[in-house]
Amino acid sequence: MRCTKCHNEATIYIRRHNTAFCKEHFIEYIYGQVEKAIKKYKMFEKTDKILVAVSGGKDSLALWDILNSLGYNSDGLYIDLGISEYSEKSKEVAQKFAESRNLKLHVVSIKDIYGVGIKEIAHKNRKPPCSTCGVIKRYIMNLTAKELQYKVIATGHNLDDESAILLGNILHWQIDYLKAQSPILFEDEAGFARKVKPLYRISEYETSAYCIMKKIEYILDECPMSIDAQSLRYKGMLNTLEKDSPGTKEQFYFGFLEKGKNYFIPEKREIKLNSCKICEQPTTSEICGFCRQITKANLEPLNMKEFILRLKDSNGQV
Amino acid sequence: MRCTKCHNEATIYIRRHNTAFCKEHFIEYIYGQVEKAIKKYKMFEKTDKILVAVSGGKDSLALWDILNSLGYNSDGLYIDLGISEYSEKSKEVAQKFAESRNLKLHVVSIKDIYGVGIKEIAHKNRKPPCSTCGVIKRYIMNLTAKELQYKVIATGHNLDDESAILLGNILHWQIDYLKAQSPILFEDEAGFARKVKPLYRISEYETSAYCIMKKIEYILDECPMSIDAQSLRYKGMLNTLEKDSPGTKEQFYFGFLEKGKNYFIPEKREIKLNSCKICEQPTTSEICGFCRQITKANLEPLNMKEFILRLKDSNGQV
Repeated sequence: MRCTKCHNEATIYIRRHNTAFCKEHFIEYIYGQVEKAIKKYKMFEKTDKILVAVSGGKDSLALWDILNSLGYNSDGLYIDLGISEYSEKSKEVAQKFAESRNLKLHVVSIKDIYGVGIKEIAHKNRKPPCSTCGVIKRYIMNLTAKELQYKVIATGHNLDDESAILLGNILHWQIDYLKAQSPILFEDEAGFARKVKPLYRISEYETSAYCIMKKIEYILDECPMSIDAQSLRYKGMLNTLEKDSPGTKEQFYFGFLEKGKNYFIPEKREIKLNSCKICEQPTTSEICGFCRQITKANLEPLNMKEFILRLKDSNGQV
Repeated sequence: MRCTKCHNEATIYIRRHNTAFCKEHFIEYIYGQVEKAIKKYKMFEKTDKILVAVSGGKDSLALWDILNSLGYNSDGLYIDLGISEYSEKSKEVAQKFAESRNLKLHVVSIKDIYGVGIKEIAHKNRKPPCSTCGVIKRYIMNLTAKELQYKVIATGHNLDDESAILLGNILHWQIDYLKAQSPILFEDEAGFARKVKPLYRISEYETSAYCIMKKIEYILDECPMSIDAQSLRYKGMLNTLEKDSPGTKEQFYFGFLEKGKNYFIPEKREIKLNSCKICEQPTTSEICGFCRQITKANLEPLNMKEFILRLKDSNGQV
């Protein structure tokens, strides 16, 4: 097979677009798709400071590499959740990536701060680890972006992630989630930072291929706590359909963004937001989800903001 | 396992409701679900004349049997599409059912009227057989209901059918189809009869079980022309999810009817409808879909209305 662009030998075939690329033109295609996403949703400008949420997996490292290659001004944030070997390995991979490109990576270690990892916190709270992890990661990402003056948080969600999430939300008619599902969530006065997903046009297969071609080392293992079988099931279903009708995922997710989403118009945020009584961050309750997890787990309600602010001048970790 | 109602030995277990029934109480449950559907959507009353579209398959025969058992006033309509042995066999099964219950079955035979079956018409038109069949069946059902003064057309679509159709419409964001997907489509001034789906609360598995328990003989074979692999694929996907999370289909379809559907509000029919220049039936074009198929296939544009009217006094077929 030949590259659609230069007719040299192709290295990759994108079935849903019926195009093949050599290495050079595949990378150009990826850059093009990410630029298209950034422009279409006015995610950020070249002068904006971007905080990339880095897990050490293929998607987040591909994202960081792409943004850096395109000349965007980005730092990374790695949240060490203290999941034994898995966290150690993925942190190492993220740090190695940052060093190799001379990029700044902030590291916030839950275990160093609280003495216990996410597993113990979830266990003490009798909550599923994934939901605890979600609350904690969102809180730290938001606080870091705000306190260290980042314009926007970028995450590595790809087309496979977004279409599987969409399918789950639709199967259960989670209207509030449907209203919020978008490649961009704008910042608001309540104190939530802007969040964007520049890889929403790119499939999982393509981010893997990108990492391989750019020789980016990433952690292959899935999180050992992740038993989110449901979302894997939705991905599996969509993969089956994609196999028979290439383009199904793209049509489904892009169709939602272009047609379906118009029907689920978000109301103006009418929910009254308070300042959390413990940490002063925005919350719909008296105490925010993060502080509830921490206090319920009988951990000291430390001032996370102070820890985050220490990141400003250090190149190390908190 | 014991019947949830009477504690006698159960014959069937409905996983998504976590209930088991003996034969008697299963039939009672089915009647209850159908009555619930009829009342909820005000489909029809005991005094209304109902036309049941009968294919000879389990769903349409179960529907006819249920309506008859519940004391509704129903006749059947079998459309003989001239698909060789398959049509012969299914017509026989439908006629046998009608005779055994002393019910009136209208038979309209495409092959007898036009000299060719659906396969030839589709072939001459270079159209897929399923879409040709859909156009012809809908036309004849509507004309029969109108000319023979039936209040409503009832079809055997079950929960599996409706949830698979919904999934297909959502994956492709077919907004117009989403707006129209409902257990009831009201009649309108333009000349379309009311159409209802009283089995929308009942799964495919349950209609089969009902037929077996009531000793209803039905045709097991799928239509040999039906290569609608896509809708079978959607059913397969939903079955996989249902296996892991019983109730998925019901939640998905009922959730759509109760929550999702509100967002896809149908506009008042603003499309100007004309009378078909050949048959005078309502159409958005100059010539209706049915007459287009017939004339394109170089068949004589016979007056189908006259054929239908002959059904009024005959107990035979046209």
